[in-house]
Amino acid sequence: MRVIKIGGAQMGPIQKAEDRASVVARMIALLDRAAEQGCGLVVFPELALTTFFPRWKEHEADIPSFYEDAMPNAATQPLFDRAKAHGIAISFGYAERTPEGRRFNTSILTDRTGAIVGKYRKVHLPGHVEYDPERTHQHLEKRYFEPGDLGFPVWRNEGAVMGMCICNDRRWPETWRVMGLQGVELVVLGYNTPSVNSQMGDEGLEKRLYHSELSITSGAYQNACWAVAVAKAGDEDGHPLMGGSIIVDPNGFVVARAQTEGDELIVADADMDACNFGKETIFDFARHRRIEHYGRITAQTGATPPQD
Amino acid sequence: MRVIKIGGAQMGPIQKAEDRASVVARMIALLDRAAEQGCGLVVFPELALTTFFPRWKEHEADIPSFYEDAMPNAATQPLFDRAKAHGIAISFGYAERTPEGRRFNTSILTDRTGAIVGKYRKVHLPGHVEYDPERTHQHLEKRYFEPGDLGFPVWRNEGAVMGMCICNDRRWPETWRVMGLQGVELVVLGYNTPSVNSQMGDEGLEKRLYHSELSITSGAYQNACWAVAVAKAGDEDGHPLMGGSIIVDPNGFVVARAQTEGDELIVADADMDACNFGKETIFDFARHRRIEHYGRITAQTGATPPQD
Repeated sequence: MRVIKIGGAQMGPIQKAEDRASVVARMIALLDRAAEQGCGLVVFPELALTTFFPRWKEHEADIPSFYEDAMPNAATQPLFDRAKAHGIAISFGYAERTPEGRRFNTSILTDRTGAIVGKYRKVHLPGHVEYDPERTHQHLEKRYFEPGDLGFPVWRNEGAVMGMCICNDRRWPETWRVMGLQGVELVVLGYNTPSVNSQMGDEGLEKRLYHSELSITSGAYQNACWAVAVAKAGDEDGHPLMGGSIIVDPNGFVVARAQTEGDELIVADADMDACNFGKETIFDFARHRRIEHYGRITAQTGATPPQD
Repeated sequence: MRVIKIGGAQMGPIQKAEDRASVVARMIALLDRAAEQGCGLVVFPELALTTFFPRWKEHEADIPSFYEDAMPNAATQPLFDRAKAHGIAISFGYAERTPEGRRFNTSILTDRTGAIVGKYRKVHLPGHVEYDPERTHQHLEKRYFEPGDLGFPVWRNEGAVMGMCICNDRRWPETWRVMGLQGVELVVLGYNTPSVNSQMGDEGLEKRLYHSELSITSGAYQNACWAVAVAKAGDEDGHPLMGGSIIVDPNGFVVARAQTEGDELIVADADMDACNFGKETIFDFARHRRIEHYGRITAQTGATPPQD
């Protein structure tokens, strides 16, 4: 048994006007709750420090203020300090701006001393580059960020092999498989997912929750790993984000689920040894995968249907 | 609208002693029912002509008699004739033996004239090569077949882009993605899946049905395609196989589901144009995939965890 008590720290909405101090105070309150319950790892959402600003055009939002130039920084240091005091490893997402001015949708992972052991930059940016008047809301992630340049690394941390991905990455089986091929035992991820499809109004909350859960449970099952998926949820300045944070076991079953769209902690005891059976039998990659037939997956980006 | 009325022709058990004539008569009865309902395509299970013989050691089963040396052949010609008479395209699985004596777990696809337009040989063979006394039942697929050598091709048939896979293939996202990268709109597959995991007794029917459905619904959703998954089910000489045949839409929702473990037809109107939205938006591969980070998927077969 290698049990990690995991806390999924779902966050309610962050309004455009809310400052970092207020957000970090909310994160610390969730961390304190997790400490009371004995958690060893707490996972916060994507872009946990700000509103989901890619929904705004630049002139509508003071975009530069949503980026972090260092991590930790003055605003987030109290969170790192509290995590270290509790002896809890954490992961959260934020908008990263490098010294060269490059911008990424990033998440970090710490150990229980508050040291950053891993950084991930979102690879699968959804949405679009230019303002699209036909959408009910904008999703300008491809404008505000460039695609991650770090791949999908994993790290040994707190006795397990951990990996990260962010939001839309969870819908891509490649994300999970690249980590699975590195023996990942726990994938942590955050998301900010609008409750309605901006290009198809009848794809509402129920369908969107289903698609999210389907992607996460299948990724966990097919790679025999745990997954913790944590939402920023609720109404951000009139734009609803779905909740539905879940913790999923290596058989693809949901073992904890958020009930609200607010700040809410979900908790599960996750035995990393529960990954072993799947990795040694039905998903023993070495015995069953047939890479000689997978060539298209890395050889071509788009689909090429057969000629009529 | 490009609607194909699809019939999933689940079959109940086939006992070791049951001959081809009896099996083909059952298949024709299902075909007649599908014709009454106006189906344009009918999908039968994996190894539709015989019992699931890889559960038997050679000396327990008259193995050679379970293979087909040609397709169609005398035993199956009546099925092809009836399909042509009805104007129904069909797909079914069988044990193929080539003139060179090579053995594959194979399925074929016809057009509505009964002409074979596609052949697929199962790539992901589950199970084991040698008799394993620790299992509650044997799963000697790796002994009786060699892995498919045709990849995952697709074909334009009856106005749609169709692909095939077989049973355990459905659990591998690579299967779906390789077809998705060829613009597949409909994946047809059959399976023979024991109701209990031979290596973990408490993984019973409910979990097995969940894993199967999870794999199929996620594959359909993540590639924006229809899927028809058809069981051979019920008790074959004391060995239970699960049912749960389903038809799944390109959003990953089950639109038809078998209720029994016997011969049973499920039907759905499948509009191939319903694939377009997903293929043009969230799963527009050309716009969103990042193959520069997928290298491990084709470069390595087994998992390589990081060093301690």
